[in-house]
Amino acid sequence: MTTLASSDPVSPELRSAYDAQKLVPLWESGTTGFSQGGEQPRHWPWEAIGPILRETAHITVPSIVERRVLMMMNSTIPRNDAESCAGLVSAGVQALMPGEIARPHRHAMHALRFVLEGEGAETIVEGKACAMEPGDLVVTPGWAWHEHHNKGGKPTLWVDILDLAIHRAMRTDMFQPGPVNALRAVPADRAYGAAGIVPVGIEENEVARAGHTMMFRYPAGPAQAAAANAPQDQFGIRLARYVDPRNGGAIVPTIDCYLMQLEEAETAKARSLGAQLCVVVAGAGESDIDGTRIAWRRHDVFTIPRGATVVHRISEGPAQIFVASDIEIYRRLGQADGNDPALFAAV
Amino acid sequence: MTTLASSDPVSPELRSAYDAQKLVPLWESGTTGFSQGGEQPRHWPWEAIGPILRETAHITVPSIVERRVLMMMNSTIPRNDAESCAGLVSAGVQALMPGEIARPHRHAMHALRFVLEGEGAETIVEGKACAMEPGDLVVTPGWAWHEHHNKGGKPTLWVDILDLAIHRAMRTDMFQPGPVNALRAVPADRAYGAAGIVPVGIEENEVARAGHTMMFRYPAGPAQAAAANAPQDQFGIRLARYVDPRNGGAIVPTIDCYLMQLEEAETAKARSLGAQLCVVVAGAGESDIDGTRIAWRRHDVFTIPRGATVVHRISEGPAQIFVASDIEIYRRLGQADGNDPALFAAV
Amino acid sequence: MTTLASSDPVSPELRSAYDAQKLVPLWESGTTGFSQGGEQPRHWPWEAIGPILRETAHITVPSIVERRVLMMMNSTIPRNDAESCAGLVSAGVQALMPGEIARPHRHAMHALRFVLEGEGAETIVEGKACAMEPGDLVVTPGWAWHEHHNKGGKPTLWVDILDLAIHRAMRTDMFQPGPVNALRAVPADRAYGAAGIVPVGIEENEVARAGHTMMFRYPAGPAQAAAANAPQDQFGIRLARYVDPRNGGAIVPTIDCYLMQLEEAETAKARSLGAQLCVVVAGAGESDIDGTRIAWRRHDVFTIPRGATVVHRISEGPAQIFVASDIEIYRRLGQADGNDPALFAAV
Amino acid sequence: MTTLASSDPVSPELRSAYDAQKLVPLWESGTTGFSQGGEQPRHWPWEAIGPILRETAHITVPSIVERRVLMMMNSTIPRNDAESCAGLVSAGVQALMPGEIARPHRHAMHALRFVLEGEGAETIVEGKACAMEPGDLVVTPGWAWHEHHNKGGKPTLWVDILDLAIHRAMRTDMFQPGPVNALRAVPADRAYGAAGIVPVGIEENEVARAGHTMMFRYPAGPAQAAAANAPQDQFGIRLARYVDPRNGGAIVPTIDCYLMQLEEAETAKARSLGAQLCVVVAGAGESDIDGTRIAWRRHDVFTIPRGATVVHRISEGPAQIFVASDIEIYRRLGQADGNDPALFAAV
Repeated sequence: MTTLASSDPVSPELRSAYDAQKLVPLWESGTTGFSQGGEQPRHWPWEAIGPILRETAHITVPSIVERRVLMMMNSTIPRNDAESCAGLVSAGVQALMPGEIARPHRHAMHALRFVLEGEGAETIVEGKACAMEPGDLVVTPGWAWHEHHNKGGKPTLWVDILDLAIHRAMRTDMFQPGPVNALRAVPADRAYGAAGIVPVGIEENEVARAGHTMMFRYPAGPAQAAAANAPQDQFGIRLARYVDPRNGGAIVPTIDCYLMQLEEAETAKARSLGAQLCVVVAGAGESDIDGTRIAWRRHDVFTIPRGATVVHRISEGPAQIFVASDIEIYRRLGQADGNDPALFAAV
Repeated sequence: MTTLASSDPVSPELRSAYDAQKLVPLWESGTTGFSQGGEQPRHWPWEAIGPILRETAHITVPSIVERRVLMMMNSTIPRNDAESCAGLVSAGVQALMPGEIARPHRHAMHALRFVLEGEGAETIVEGKACAMEPGDLVVTPGWAWHEHHNKGGKPTLWVDILDLAIHRAMRTDMFQPGPVNALRAVPADRAYGAAGIVPVGIEENEVARAGHTMMFRYPAGPAQAAAANAPQDQFGIRLARYVDPRNGGAIVPTIDCYLMQLEEAETAKARSLGAQLCVVVAGAGESDIDGTRIAWRRHDVFTIPRGATVVHRISEGPAQIFVASDIEIYRRLGQADGNDPALFAAV
Repeated sequence: MTTLASSDPVSPELRSAYDAQKLVPLWESGTTGFSQGGEQPRHWPWEAIGPILRETAHITVPSIVERRVLMMMNSTIPRNDAESCAGLVSAGVQALMPGEIARPHRHAMHALRFVLEGEGAETIVEGKACAMEPGDLVVTPGWAWHEHHNKGGKPTLWVDILDLAIHRAMRTDMFQPGPVNALRAVPADRAYGAAGIVPVGIEENEVARAGHTMMFRYPAGPAQAAAANAPQDQFGIRLARYVDPRNGGAIVPTIDCYLMQLEEAETAKARSLGAQLCVVVAGAGESDIDGTRIAWRRHDVFTIPRGATVVHRISEGPAQIFVASDIEIYRRLGQADGNDPALFAAV
Repeated sequence: MTTLASSDPVSPELRSAYDAQKLVPLWESGTTGFSQGGEQPRHWPWEAIGPILRETAHITVPSIVERRVLMMMNSTIPRNDAESCAGLVSAGVQALMPGEIARPHRHAMHALRFVLEGEGAETIVEGKACAMEPGDLVVTPGWAWHEHHNKGGKPTLWVDILDLAIHRAMRTDMFQPGPVNALRAVPADRAYGAAGIVPVGIEENEVARAGHTMMFRYPAGPAQAAAANAPQDQFGIRLARYVDPRNGGAIVPTIDCYLMQLEEAETAKARSLGAQLCVVVAGAGESDIDGTRIAWRRHDVFTIPRGATVVHRISEGPAQIFVASDIEIYRRLGQADGNDPALFAAV
């Protein structure tokens, strides 16, 4: 610091020394770089993406058939190396044509399929055949072998939902192609088929300790009836949560799913505790999300950023919206207001 | 202690002094008085008690109609001031004739009804009408208003199950006759009607914090299918547990209920972790309980003491047995092997 | 029911039939018999019981030496077959003279010792020697072998606290005299000696799963300092809770212990959620308990019934009172307002 | 697909269509890109970095004084935009010279300081002055205001530990410079000063619900004694865990801290469940980490990747090593083997 020429308080020798030791001075990092936010709500109207998805269905190259997914990438999300759609939730639309098969594979990511259209297709998850009828939610938990078969006569279209971003961050984003080996002995879905009843006597094995649901298919009908009968919360929303029947917690540790019924003309203004990926199941309406207005109808996908203020209005109701949120990650890591399964809080 | 005449090391003066202060010397209490056990398995064959219950149905004195319950008292239970049937579980058989009503009342005890026969009757629990069809389990949680109506054309017969003994011990055995006041706003049972789905948005109120299920009716059909599809445990038993869908725990904190399916000719020898009140739902067989052999068939009630060694054999199967156990009390108070929902352990 | 002579709606034949089947008609039981309450606050002034305890110390019959306990029985507690002192908590005062030994034994009951006077005595719990200095709390968890030795030169006097009533109710009141066998490998108390630090690597064994603290001695000094530094709650009370350092829960599942510091002239009126056994550690004052006034000073024992309204006033402060409560039983069995470790609630 | 010229199964029109809708075809993403691993163990010997740190101490530019931290960046970690040192744990060495002050600020990241040298410095956390003596661990939980003062006569040197990577991933990496506003009412550390004792009566406020410890300073002496007295685990390691005294869980939800004592010549081969940042407190030795040998001594920092196989050998013992691990993140998100506080598992 003896020369006029340089205002750098760090001598070249010191700089060389810490470089050599792989030390990086914090004072050269800005603190202004820290930032939250940036993410904006996005809308993929079905009338725009449905035709594109149907068009891709004509591509029959085997390698594409198996991964015929159009990821809905939200380019407003900062550092979005996981091509997320809403917060830490990735999502795409997928089509499986009659007779097509997507061969078995597995990955550390938890994947959920929310079915839009089709009949006769099924996903085989860890050996359990799960029908994929419209409105069904099929869970393929992390590291469970799964494959898809369309045994029906119509295209089956669904929304694929993944927790890729958090696995990227944890560096647990592993993938393994088939063939299937070492299927775990998983109780039949029928063992979980009664509300309020769970099988016991399997507590000691690894399956029982798994941190995700062992019920892999949540059929549309009962879920829709449950949402319709859930009490209205303080915002005027009926909210049913998909849970692991063994403990009433989220179906997977990283994605929390809900079926929301809207009957009131307008909900009270609420703050979304996590990011929401919304798939319209029935009805139509519009949502005001931090000032952005999105008009939605059946099969549309739209997103709500974490922390956004939301008002939903319906024009055709009751409306039902399936929601997949990253809020469970924030809860578990102490970044949400408490551990309650709430999706909204007062503004 | 100077006289030969007396070997009492306590002087009369000292004795007077501690009596006056309501002090009781421990050394005058035996330690040999401590004892576990004593309880023996008991059997109430339906062919014996069914006719008696039907006979009581002819008594139409209003005060009896409402409380037409024959308590199954197990006289082998020591200090049984709660007239328990199996361990800390009290049970009786009750009949409600066509057109009869048992007027509203409530009590701190949790009461469960497991229906044997009838059609068209219902229990109204905290305002929710719960049908009472054969095989149904209806829960009237502590302090919930409830009343029974037989709107059908046949007698409705059920087993009444209560946690009276532990309430006696805690001195919380409160009772209040109607009329009903201050019903709590309880979500509809239909909101809990889908396996793996629970309503949310009600977390803040007292109902949500309640330590018992808010689903009050567990219908027979799905429960029986779930038991039939539960995996066989190490003893060769299929076991489905009735749970609070909000957390996967016992439906009430003091009674844990299961539906057990027996298909194997003989189960492996197992130790019962709690006392079991068993109601035979289907099939026939016999059980060897600590050397006592009980041959049972449909609608029979029998009991298994806490800690007893059990082998079940079936002669007509598959058999289904409803079990209500006091094991949850022992778990919660640290007197069971862990907190797992197990009913049996290796011998 | 055809004769005028009899108004009994039950025929002798029916009565014989249900008697023979050990069925007891519920309608012959009153419902008015149900009752809570009855328990009154009680006071054992040290100036009254101390001299009696010292007097018993002159009795040196070996069988008495080992069990030289004067149980403080609260005769206002209904059905008090466990000779409880406050709610479900039993308590006595015990003396061990210099050189005396109480030989090893164990029992299912959890026992706590709160030391009043002495020096040089110790309780050996599951092989761990725990000094018994004034103000110390020594825990002998259920089924842990323990023995007392007075190696010092003065009488050691303490309050013995047991959960006998709930064990009676559960029929787990087992006792086993020595000699010691099968000591479990328990981490040293020094492994738990740092606030906020716990040993790990012992999770798999039975000791780790035990539902009680593995730290057996809670020394007086740090506890008293912690109570003095606890924040004042809404009632003007500073309250420190003795916990299992592994989970922050009650030290044993059935007795919850606190050290309370009173500095304000008068606390706000509060409702006691459980019964409280109070031992005055320092200071003097009086308490108004549901209208009963008790004036207390050092070493006095007094009780507060469950649900009573309490105001504490101090005449000499700050006062410290050790409290052992049965509230944890009510929490675990769903009979308290939530699971929070609160001792008092708003009136 | 009719021309020979092109083998692209996707028509330009389709490609334009999905680009316009911000849809990204999954089939164009490789699956081979998925990968775990890559991270290598690293070593920052104190004899190398100590002198550099002391050299930086001569820089007295105010903006540098406050952030005089040399981050230890592990360049083998893939996608390491958080400049992490071990897995998801960032770490640096920091110096505060006599008389220097680092002004108040706060951030969403949890930060821990493990003190190497110095006397008389303190960190003020949410208003609580926490001394920084050698071996102390000082916690500045997320969003707690904190500042550093060196009131002593010697440089104070410490290791700074942060959970920056996971906050980056969650986009919660917020920073706020002072001045301090809105300090929360936090119980004094002295209220947590007794092992096995916690203050109560503060359950209702936001502080009580916070998912991190409210005890901010874990002093060296008791921690070191606790580690020395912890039982040896199956690998021959004594392991004491820093916990939130209110619940026995990790001190913050994202970093789990331990003090490890090594006495045996060589530990058994073990697999590290999370990444470990190791700071040598006492003794010397070497570690074999997946075949890489690191020879360490007092104040050295070295790292163990998640999943690595480890053998520790001591040349000068007993050795004590402070460990900060990201394992808690994996536990909470269901990516560890269970929720137990284990740091190692069998190979």
